[in-house]
Amino acid sequence: MLRRTLLGSAPAILLAGARRPWREVESILASGDFKGRLSVDDLPTPALLVDLDALDANIARMAAHCKAKKLALRPHGKTHKCPQIAKRLIAAGAVGACAAKLSEAEAFAKGGVGGLLITTAVIGEHKIERAVRLARLKPDTIFCADNAQNAADLNAAATSAGVKLNVAIDLYVGNRTGIKTGEPAAALAQTAAKLGGLRLAGLQAYAGHASHRNGFEARRALSREVMQGAVETRRMIEASGIPCPMLTGGSTGTYNIDCDIDGITELQPGSFVFMDIDYARIGGADGPVFRDFKHSLTVLTTVVSKPTDSEAVVDGGLKAFSTDKPFPPEARGIDGVAFSWGGDEHGKLNLAKASKALNVGDRVEFVIPHCDPTVNLYDRMYGVRGRQVELSWAVAARGMSQ
Amino acid sequence: MLRRTLLGSAPAILLAGARRPWREVESILASGDFKGRLSVDDLPTPALLVDLDALDANIARMAAHCKAKKLALRPHGKTHKCPQIAKRLIAAGAVGACAAKLSEAEAFAKGGVGGLLITTAVIGEHKIERAVRLARLKPDTIFCADNAQNAADLNAAATSAGVKLNVAIDLYVGNRTGIKTGEPAAALAQTAAKLGGLRLAGLQAYAGHASHRNGFEARRALSREVMQGAVETRRMIEASGIPCPMLTGGSTGTYNIDCDIDGITELQPGSFVFMDIDYARIGGADGPVFRDFKHSLTVLTTVVSKPTDSEAVVDGGLKAFSTDKPFPPEARGIDGVAFSWGGDEHGKLNLAKASKALNVGDRVEFVIPHCDPTVNLYDRMYGVRGRQVELSWAVAARGMSQ
Repeated sequence: MLRRTLLGSAPAILLAGARRPWREVESILASGDFKGRLSVDDLPTPALLVDLDALDANIARMAAHCKAKKLALRPHGKTHKCPQIAKRLIAAGAVGACAAKLSEAEAFAKGGVGGLLITTAVIGEHKIERAVRLARLKPDTIFCADNAQNAADLNAAATSAGVKLNVAIDLYVGNRTGIKTGEPAAALAQTAAKLGGLRLAGLQAYAGHASHRNGFEARRALSREVMQGAVETRRMIEASGIPCPMLTGGSTGTYNIDCDIDGITELQPGSFVFMDIDYARIGGADGPVFRDFKHSLTVLTTVVSKPTDSEAVVDGGLKAFSTDKPFPPEARGIDGVAFSWGGDEHGKLNLAKASKALNVGDRVEFVIPHCDPTVNLYDRMYGVRGRQVELSWAVAARGMSQ
Repeated sequence: MLRRTLLGSAPAILLAGARRPWREVESILASGDFKGRLSVDDLPTPALLVDLDALDANIARMAAHCKAKKLALRPHGKTHKCPQIAKRLIAAGAVGACAAKLSEAEAFAKGGVGGLLITTAVIGEHKIERAVRLARLKPDTIFCADNAQNAADLNAAATSAGVKLNVAIDLYVGNRTGIKTGEPAAALAQTAAKLGGLRLAGLQAYAGHASHRNGFEARRALSREVMQGAVETRRMIEASGIPCPMLTGGSTGTYNIDCDIDGITELQPGSFVFMDIDYARIGGADGPVFRDFKHSLTVLTTVVSKPTDSEAVVDGGLKAFSTDKPFPPEARGIDGVAFSWGGDEHGKLNLAKASKALNVGDRVEFVIPHCDPTVNLYDRMYGVRGRQVELSWAVAARGMSQ
């Protein structure tokens, strides 16, 4: 009763020690009005946390960089899958958001995000029908194509529906999808430009292998080498009299490299909003650790068992963290903790060299190996400042890989 | 018009060739009434497929095995996270379902599944409050505990709420969580049995490392060795005059090993419903491949790019498949296809030795490396027989790792 009265009269003060019942937390979570009423200690674990100060610093840094370099910024939404973050980026100056797949773009559109670029080709009659529907809702959406048949299919659907689809030619720059740069890509662009249902938006060139090349100089050399073909392709198209206003590419790993390649008009980095262990390891321009952006994303876990004095088991395993990288999550705020996978639902901590003791019920926060697939495991992320939970964002495009 | 008429008059016949528009597929998907109206070719990819004949054969085999061995079967729901599959197992003779975490159990209870056993300890005031709530809804739910403090916390909450919580003592058998077998575990069981808010349900002993030991004989030797301590602990407790009716454990890898260990009363395998590449590799009693259960689970993808004649890119990557095992998905129905990861959203196929050609728009189905974390990536799975989609099941406990 006393607690309820206190909460009622002083909602901005979190009570230390006194634990409110779950039914109160549940009601606060359902209300969406957290301010001053919710601590990270109230969150059921495993929970995905975003440090809002770090997030905002990352957004501000990238936005200022692109502004200074006179480049458009269209950050990749596959990292956060969250319309609210896409809108935060747009408020900071981004021209829109990239989406990896059609269904992800549909989720962003539903969440009120415009300026969409779908970085994977939309293939098949059904998805093209959906693409036309999306283009009606958000006419500035850009679709990628890397072959003449797909361009013809998009054109047929657009013509039949009486709309125009903006198309970017996806270039192969040593990684994954795309048409060969130079003559083949220029010819496809010329074909697309002539199709009445399409509008040539430009080119896309994403060199994922360059993004993660270790060492700044090695990364710069590789990115400059592979992006050269993209820049030349753009020149070829424009020399043929066809406007090619956009060349989009780049990543968190090459944001400060590709910006200096003449002919690139826009950057589409994603991970910089959150950062992860993977990107930290590629090295920065100023040293062996890439520190340009802060680790804003963590997973909060709880110790659920302590089989021996030097071992603890937390409630986060293969379903709480990405597992595609050959290194595990890293505990924050405790040194000397070695994490190993304990199956789908558990992480095993070796505490032999830990800087402090951990007991059942204690909470442990981890920086994550790879941000994108980790976010894709959660329905929501909690925005925190210090110990206070300020907000909860639905990961609205979670699972939208179609 | 003709097509609609045909569909209306002969709903059991799928039309070959004639592709129905997406808006019709969307309406069929929304209706939930698929029979004869939906082909796998209509599903947006990547899609999670379950072959219902293979699923039912797997369920029948495990149910018959447990019946013959006079063992209870409480299959682990963390594999499928789907109340409909839990109920299908119960209809075949299972006594209920295991859930890895409290929130997963809540999702099963909401879906009408009883006989729940939560295999991870429920830690912290908030979760214990939820455990009491769950026990009110499903009084036969069993909670695991591996230390005296947790038993005391459960007891305090139960006593205060005027309910009884069924508790199983979680034993350490060489893997992850649990209290040491023998005297420490027996003492905890005796303590729990004396607490007025608890009812001692028995013991849990899960030896995950034994489940995946390669080679049947090696696996049998290891499982028999580590489970011996669990069996002895049960005898010690009963010798002290305290009933210990249940010893639950085992896995898909040891279902035909643990069944012959005297003192084990119940098996809790999970993966057998779907199988995966990982379990196939552990070897069976009859040879180097574990073939007791069929691969019922696959991921359907589409070729979205073909950068060269010998390379194709499908629309399934790190967000469409589990990535915790050191081997990739395997294409079904085509030999000689080598899969490599192409990032979050793509898989790269080397077709140099492929038994047939693949072009943009073709669909490729993959057997998956590890079933549990793969299922956890999807909102729904589609139940298929041949090319027909019979049903769609929500993965209701997806993401429920709390």
